[in-house]
Amino acid sequence: MTDTSNAPYAFEGLDRVIHEKARLGIMTSLISHPKGLAFTDLKKLCDLTDGNLSRHISVLQEAGLINVKKGYLNNKPHTTCALTAKGKKQFLKYLDVLEGIVENANATAKSLKATNRKPA
Amino acid sequence: MTDTSNAPYAFEGLDRVIHEKARLGIMTSLISHPKGLAFTDLKKLCDLTDGNLSRHISVLQEAGLINVKKGYLNNKPHTTCALTAKGKKQFLKYLDVLEGIVENANATAKSLKATNRKPA
Repeated sequence: MTDTSNAPYAFEGLDRVIHEKARLGIMTSLISHPKGLAFTDLKKLCDLTDGNLSRHISVLQEAGLINVKKGYLNNKPHTTCALTAKGKKQFLKYLDVLEGIVENANATAKSLKATNRKPA
Repeated sequence: MTDTSNAPYAFEGLDRVIHEKARLGIMTSLISHPKGLAFTDLKKLCDLTDGNLSRHISVLQEAGLINVKKGYLNNKPHTTCALTAKGKKQFLKYLDVLEGIVENANATAKSLKATNRKPA
């Protein structure tokens, strides 16, 4: 393992599985819907194509972050997805890391703005 | 353009060029160092290999977000990178979007926790 003690911007805790933009949207949708969401609803909420959503769902499922249930509704195939307990835990951990990054970057940006400000 | 008015989790404003984990690290390093950083320092701060850093720098440079200066220091090639004005502006915009996502997701997670809490 690489020594990252001197690499404050390597963002070790920022899980790439969750960080990818479309998957971040899927995870955020699912944390707001603890009972799960139908594939078709998730598609609309995240503005993804069938193919893209399927691909990202597979990645999240393989990582154990979501559960996928395939069934039937009115004789039509009906797929629903929900966060697993691990998924919820990992997502909250990811949000903590992200919050720290945003806070630090904003603080730096604000301090630079204050330094650059010239007296009137 | 796709209609995303009903797609709250499409995160339209989340620029993929900046969002990628390694590039997010590079942009965060550079906003803390307004005078720019040497390639070798950036490599250490972000824990990236030469090849990876070069690749990500090219993406950021092509998007007009960073400036790259190639020169010599003590007769050795010396490359430095710094945010452009556009890069700083775009990064601050990106941070705003990210902050909103984190706040909303955290608020949802907290409200669920409160709802699930059973009386003692």
